[in-house]
Amino acid sequence: MSLTEQREGIEAGRLDMFVDGAFAFILTLLLIGGDKIPDSTDKLLYMLGGVPAFAVCFFQIAFFWHGHVRWRKRCHSADSTGRWLSLLLVFFAMIFVYPLHMVYSGAFNSLSGGALPSDFQMTGGPADMRALFVCFGFAYACMAGTLTLLFLHAAKSAAKRGFNNLDARRELRIWSVPATIGLASALTALLLPLSAPGWAWSIPGFMYSLLFLIGPVVNRFNRRYAPA
Amino acid sequence: MSLTEQREGIEAGRLDMFVDGAFAFILTLLLIGGDKIPDSTDKLLYMLGGVPAFAVCFFQIAFFWHGHVRWRKRCHSADSTGRWLSLLLVFFAMIFVYPLHMVYSGAFNSLSGGALPSDFQMTGGPADMRALFVCFGFAYACMAGTLTLLFLHAAKSAAKRGFNNLDARRELRIWSVPATIGLASALTALLLPLSAPGWAWSIPGFMYSLLFLIGPVVNRFNRRYAPA
Amino acid sequence: MSLTEQREGIEAGRLDMFVDGAFAFILTLLLIGGDKIPDSTDKLLYMLGGVPAFAVCFFQIAFFWHGHVRWRKRCHSADSTGRWLSLLLVFFAMIFVYPLHMVYSGAFNSLSGGALPSDFQMTGGPADMRALFVCFGFAYACMAGTLTLLFLHAAKSAAKRGFNNLDARRELRIWSVPATIGLASALTALLLPLSAPGWAWSIPGFMYSLLFLIGPVVNRFNRRYAPA
Amino acid sequence: MSLTEQREGIEAGRLDMFVDGAFAFILTLLLIGGDKIPDSTDKLLYMLGGVPAFAVCFFQIAFFWHGHVRWRKRCHSADSTGRWLSLLLVFFAMIFVYPLHMVYSGAFNSLSGGALPSDFQMTGGPADMRALFVCFGFAYACMAGTLTLLFLHAAKSAAKRGFNNLDARRELRIWSVPATIGLASALTALLLPLSAPGWAWSIPGFMYSLLFLIGPVVNRFNRRYAPA
Repeated sequence: MSLTEQREGIEAGRLDMFVDGAFAFILTLLLIGGDKIPDSTDKLLYMLGGVPAFAVCFFQIAFFWHGHVRWRKRCHSADSTGRWLSLLLVFFAMIFVYPLHMVYSGAFNSLSGGALPSDFQMTGGPADMRALFVCFGFAYACMAGTLTLLFLHAAKSAAKRGFNNLDARRELRIWSVPATIGLASALTALLLPLSAPGWAWSIPGFMYSLLFLIGPVVNRFNRRYAPA
Repeated sequence: MSLTEQREGIEAGRLDMFVDGAFAFILTLLLIGGDKIPDSTDKLLYMLGGVPAFAVCFFQIAFFWHGHVRWRKRCHSADSTGRWLSLLLVFFAMIFVYPLHMVYSGAFNSLSGGALPSDFQMTGGPADMRALFVCFGFAYACMAGTLTLLFLHAAKSAAKRGFNNLDARRELRIWSVPATIGLASALTALLLPLSAPGWAWSIPGFMYSLLFLIGPVVNRFNRRYAPA
Repeated sequence: MSLTEQREGIEAGRLDMFVDGAFAFILTLLLIGGDKIPDSTDKLLYMLGGVPAFAVCFFQIAFFWHGHVRWRKRCHSADSTGRWLSLLLVFFAMIFVYPLHMVYSGAFNSLSGGALPSDFQMTGGPADMRALFVCFGFAYACMAGTLTLLFLHAAKSAAKRGFNNLDARRELRIWSVPATIGLASALTALLLPLSAPGWAWSIPGFMYSLLFLIGPVVNRFNRRYAPA
Repeated sequence: MSLTEQREGIEAGRLDMFVDGAFAFILTLLLIGGDKIPDSTDKLLYMLGGVPAFAVCFFQIAFFWHGHVRWRKRCHSADSTGRWLSLLLVFFAMIFVYPLHMVYSGAFNSLSGGALPSDFQMTGGPADMRALFVCFGFAYACMAGTLTLLFLHAAKSAAKRGFNNLDARRELRIWSVPATIGLASALTALLLPLSAPGWAWSIPGFMYSLLFLIGPVVNRFNRRYAPA
C-alpha cells in the first residue's frame, strides 16, 4: 500500500467507527428514553408490550446502517463529500428515531386494538395525523436521500477513476425508491384536506408498504451481479 | 487477499464494531437506568448493595457477547444470514437486560434475607413469579437460540466450502443447552398451577443451575480440539 | 512492520477508538439530555423546532472531531503527549457541549423571533449575556487550542524524525485561528461594561463569523499541497 | 500470519473495542447522570463549578484505561484469563465511577471553602467519612489489583513462550503500588475509631498523595528500558 492509501484507510476506518458507534447509540436511545426500568412485574409486561414497535424501529434503523456499510464497500476512499454525507446520515438518524418510534408504537397500538401499549397518545385528530405523517415521511426521505447521494458520489468517483460503477449505480436506484416514497407520502399527507374521511388518512401510511419490495430486489440484484 | 475477501473483511469488521458497541452500551444501561447518582453516603451504600446482582448480569451478558466473538472466529465471511442473526442477538440482549436484572436483584434480595436491596418488589405472589420466570426463560432461550442458529449457519457455510466444521458443530451443541433450559424453565413456570406450594416456584429457577456445567465443558472441548 | 511499529499501531488505534466512541457519545448527549421522548404530536413539533440548533452543534463538534482525525493522519506514532492532548480534547468536548447548545438554541430562538423554541431562558440581561459569551469563548478556545497543540506536537516530532512537516504546520496555523477568535470573544465579553447598549453585546457573537473563512482556506491548502 | 494468529488478532481486537467503548461510556456517565442540562446561565455556572472534580475523575479513569492499553502491548494473545480480567476491569470501573466522583467533588468543595459546588452532602460526620474512604479505597484497590493481575498473567505467558517479560514484570510492580495504597487507605479508615479527632480522617486521604510518584517512575522506566 502506498502512503496515501494507508492514510485514506485510517480516515475511512475512523469515519466508520464514528458512524457505527453513533448508530449503536441511536438504537439504545429508544430503550433509555422510552421506558423507565420496570420495578414490578406489571411494568415489565407493559414494557414487553412495546417490543413489537421497538423491533420494527430497530430493524428499520439497522437497515439504514447497513446501507452505509454497503456504501463503504463501493467507495473505499476518504474524501470530504463522503464524510459530510455520512455525518448527515447520522444526524438524520438521530432526529428520525423519535417520529419513527411514535408512528410504529401508535400503529401497533391501534392494530392490536389497544392490547399493545403506546406512550404516545394521538388526541388531536386529523391535524395530529397530518403532522405525524409529514414528519415521518420527510425524515424517511432525508435518510434514504442521503444514502442515494452517497451512492451517487461513489458512482461518480468510481467513474472518474475508470472503475466499474455498476454496483454503485444499482444501489443508487434502489435507495432512491424509499426516498421518493417518503417524499410522496409526506406530500400526500400535507395536501389531504383536514376534512377528509378517516380512511383517507391511512393512504400515506400504506404507501410505505411498497418498501417491502426492496428487500427481494436488492438480494436478486446482489445475487445476479455479485462482484466476481 | 483478493478484493472480495477484503470487502468481506470490512463488512464483517463493521458488524463486529456495531455488536461490540451495542453490548458495551447494554451493560451500562443497567447502571444508567437503575440508579440515580448517589448524593449521600447512605445512598452510595444502598447502591453498592446492588453490586452482586449487577455483577451476575454483567458476566451473563458478557458471556453471550463472547459467544458472538467465538462465532466470528468460526465464520469470517459476511453474508446476510450472519448479519441479521447478529442484529437479532443485539436486539434480544436489549430486551433481555431488564428481566435479567429483575430476576437477579430479586434473587439476591431474598437469598440475603433483605440485606441486599432490590428496587423491584414482587407483590403479586405466584402470578408475579410465573410472569417473571416466563419472561426470563423465554428471553434466555431467544438469546441462546440465536447463538445456536449463528453456529448452525457457520457449520453449514463451512461444510459448503469444504472446510472442517467440527468446532462450529461443537459450539452449536453447547449453545443449544441454555436455549433448551430456558425454554423448559419458561414452560414449567407456565404450566405450574397458581395454587402450587411456594417451594414449587423455585423449580424453574433451579433449572438454570444446570448451566454452570457449560463453562467447564466449553473449556474441555476447546482444550482437547484446539485449532492446530 | 517491525514489532515496535506494530505495538504503536495498536496503541494509536485504541486511542482513536476511544476518541471516536466518546465523540459519538457526546453528540447523542445533546439528544438524551435535552429533550424527553415526545409523547404527543405537539411535543414532537416542539422538538423538531430545536433541530436547527442541534444541527449547528452537531456539525460544530463533528468539525472538531475531524480535526483529530486529520491530526492522526499527520502523526501515526503513539506517544504520551499525543495521548494526553487527545484525552484533553475529549474532556473539553464533554464540557463544551452544553454552553454550545445553549448559545445556538438561544441564537436561533431570538433570530426566528421566538418561532424556534429554546429550553434556555436568558432572564438576567447583560450579566447573563456576559457569562454565556465568556463560557462559550473560553471553551471554544480550549478545544481549538488543544488541536493547535496536537498539530504543534505532530510538526515537532515530524521535524525530529527528519520528515516533511509542512502539512502539520499548515494545520497548526489553521487551528490557531478559532483558538484566537474564541479567546478574543471571551475577553471582549469580559471587558464590555454591563451598562453597554444592547447592540454592543452582539459584538462577541459576530466575531465568530470570521470562522467561516477557515473552511475554504483548509480546502484550498489541502488541494494545493495535497500529499503526493 | 498463521490462521491461529489471525483468529487471536480478531478476538483480541474485539475485546479491545469492547473495553474502549465501555470506558468511553463510563466517562460520559459522569456527565449524563450528575447534571441536568442547564437551562439558565446560573445553572451553567453551577455546572462549570463541578469541572475540576470532573477533570480529576476523567483523567483518573483514563489512567486506568491506559493501563489496559499498555497491557495489550505486552500480551497480544487472546486467552480466557486475559479476557475475564479485562471484563472485570470494566466491571470495577463501572462501580468505581460513583464513589470516585463523590470523593473528588466533596474534596474540591471543602478545599475551595464551598466555592465549588458539590451535589454530595456529607452530613453523617465521621461514620460518613469512614464509609466513603472504605468504598473508595476498596474500589481503587480492586481496579489497580485487576491491572496487576493482568500484567502478572502477561509476564507468566511471556515466560512460558520463552519471551522477554521484563516490561510486564515492571508494570506489574508499578500497578501493585496503587493497589496496596488503596487497600491500606481502606483499612486505615476502617480501623480509625469514630471518636478520632477531625484531622485524623484526612490520613486515609493523604495516603493517595503517594500515587503521584507513579507517573515519573513509569516514564523513567519506559525511557530507560524502551522496547528496542
